[in-house]
Amino acid sequence: MDPSLTISIDAMGGDTGPHTVLNGLELVARKNSDVRFMLFGDEPTLKAELDKHPLLSSRAEILHCVSAIQMDEKPSQAIRSGRGRSSMWRAIEAVKDGRASACVSAGNTGALMAMAKICLKTLPEIQRPALAGFWPTTKRDSIVLDMGATIGADAQQLVDFALMGCAMARAEFNEERATVGLLNVGVEEIKGLEPIREAGSILRHLDLEHLDYRGFVEGSDIGQGIVDVVVTEGFSGNIALKTAEGTARQVASYLREAMSRSLFARLGYILARGAFRQLKRKMDPSRANGAIFLGVNGVVIKSHGAASPKGFANAVDLAARMVQNRLLEKLSEEMRSIQELTIAQADRLATGTE
Amino acid sequence: MDPSLTISIDAMGGDTGPHTVLNGLELVARKNSDVRFMLFGDEPTLKAELDKHPLLSSRAEILHCVSAIQMDEKPSQAIRSGRGRSSMWRAIEAVKDGRASACVSAGNTGALMAMAKICLKTLPEIQRPALAGFWPTTKRDSIVLDMGATIGADAQQLVDFALMGCAMARAEFNEERATVGLLNVGVEEIKGLEPIREAGSILRHLDLEHLDYRGFVEGSDIGQGIVDVVVTEGFSGNIALKTAEGTARQVASYLREAMSRSLFARLGYILARGAFRQLKRKMDPSRANGAIFLGVNGVVIKSHGAASPKGFANAVDLAARMVQNRLLEKLSEEMRSIQELTIAQADRLATGTE
Repeated sequence: MDPSLTISIDAMGGDTGPHTVLNGLELVARKNSDVRFMLFGDEPTLKAELDKHPLLSSRAEILHCVSAIQMDEKPSQAIRSGRGRSSMWRAIEAVKDGRASACVSAGNTGALMAMAKICLKTLPEIQRPALAGFWPTTKRDSIVLDMGATIGADAQQLVDFALMGCAMARAEFNEERATVGLLNVGVEEIKGLEPIREAGSILRHLDLEHLDYRGFVEGSDIGQGIVDVVVTEGFSGNIALKTAEGTARQVASYLREAMSRSLFARLGYILARGAFRQLKRKMDPSRANGAIFLGVNGVVIKSHGAASPKGFANAVDLAARMVQNRLLEKLSEEMRSIQELTIAQADRLATGTE
Repeated sequence: MDPSLTISIDAMGGDTGPHTVLNGLELVARKNSDVRFMLFGDEPTLKAELDKHPLLSSRAEILHCVSAIQMDEKPSQAIRSGRGRSSMWRAIEAVKDGRASACVSAGNTGALMAMAKICLKTLPEIQRPALAGFWPTTKRDSIVLDMGATIGADAQQLVDFALMGCAMARAEFNEERATVGLLNVGVEEIKGLEPIREAGSILRHLDLEHLDYRGFVEGSDIGQGIVDVVVTEGFSGNIALKTAEGTARQVASYLREAMSRSLFARLGYILARGAFRQLKRKMDPSRANGAIFLGVNGVVIKSHGAASPKGFANAVDLAARMVQNRLLEKLSEEMRSIQELTIAQADRLATGTE
């Protein structure tokens, strides 16, 4: 591991604030002795919390901020009130200045996206960043983007999402190629919305080194892990994600109800409690916590506002992995490869060889 | 029950064809002695199947058709090849002619929608019909529309969907009022796509006798049964539905894996098998089978192509309920009430009282 890995933390973000954030960082510090933290937020509050964590104290520095973004502020309002001074802005700024390698916040998603775009700027080839997260499947996790950061996308933006998701998958799984699918209402080429069909046609005709395009996937395919990366615009991505969360909760509540219904069921539950614990671990939402804003000039991770300390720690681990596995370099590679391909195609067209 | 209830059946539809369809009808015939069937399809095939069901034989009549719509035909192609002659068209036509009260098909969804529109016509006030189905929740089932029959919808169409869903909920639950929500990516009024926000604003300002508008609902709310009717356009509706199906299957596979992992787990499974059977029943997709094309001049039910005989029987039961509880009358009531309201509002505006 890079001995100088420093992660900047918006310590005021999340539904429960600094308490959960610092408990999460403590978990990271215990496992990983090489990572250091810059804690942005209200100094007296953070100092009091940090005093409870001697190990973490030795690896963390508090940087006082006069304000914090509220969970329900509109992004435009957050920019006006928090630019240059809020814990969220300054945590991002530390990445821009090179003082930190990545930033993690459990705060307001829209504000984090807006601040990351303004402070870090988007990559030159990218029209619009996307929020990419993990989706637990019956195989290894898949990456899904956009998870709801922006609504709607045209064909070119969907192709950009596919390339960015591919770079993230390569960084996450440490593999040369990633499989990619477009979320649609059917697998036939004629199905669905025009931008999706057009993006599918572009991806099918590109011959990219790292991206293995597998066509359309349906909602029921996501949890089967049939591709590394599922691409969709943010509205459908958010509907899919929340519907899956709701359904998992619903099945869990059916199961609880069934297992407490009779004496035999309760005895069976006791005998099989190891199995139920395993099931619970598999369905623990903190396991897949941590989403990343792809397409900005830096690694910015969003932790769920309601994440547990363990969940926050997973988001920080993701930040570390993305830095160590050189996400930004891989993103640039993908973007360069498609530019070269486009230029080569234009040349071929101009010289009449195609 | 209406002693003259006759249901027309596209007996050639579905992945497994007449065999499953007739086994399903047999289940209905055993429970319900007052319903009669018109079976449209290839006479020799149907005759051979029907001979295995003496009870059903006494309540069913075969009407020979020279063609059947394939599951993968495009709607336009299906209309060209099957208009006036296919089992699907003629089953719908029986509703138009008044020989049957409702029609059920497990065939090609797009073709069924197109034929229902052309043969039965849409209700005069409706721009576009929608496919409405049931969604099992932790309370009673909710109704969700559109489930994927048409892609995209403007604000007025979403309002129409809300009114049609409301009429269906009143017919299904036999209640005076139904609660309705619009599917969106957040519950705040500023969130989401413009047509949804606009539909929300219209519904909030209407003061309808039967429709209790409850605002936006998110993907995670659907399975909690917080409203009787969830309104969305077909793309999101299909993504949500299939994602829920996939997630339920995924959790079930985790559970199976966990319960077969150790001797204790297997013993526990055996003790609690009554509870697991209960869980399986709750999650059985055939329970919620049967969706309805709302907005056409007749009751047309779509059974899932892969439905079991029990599932097909549920779709037929739905057809019977919708006829007995006067769905079409209730649809007309909703449409009249909104027209009257619009006229009254226009009057108030014209006379300056508003």
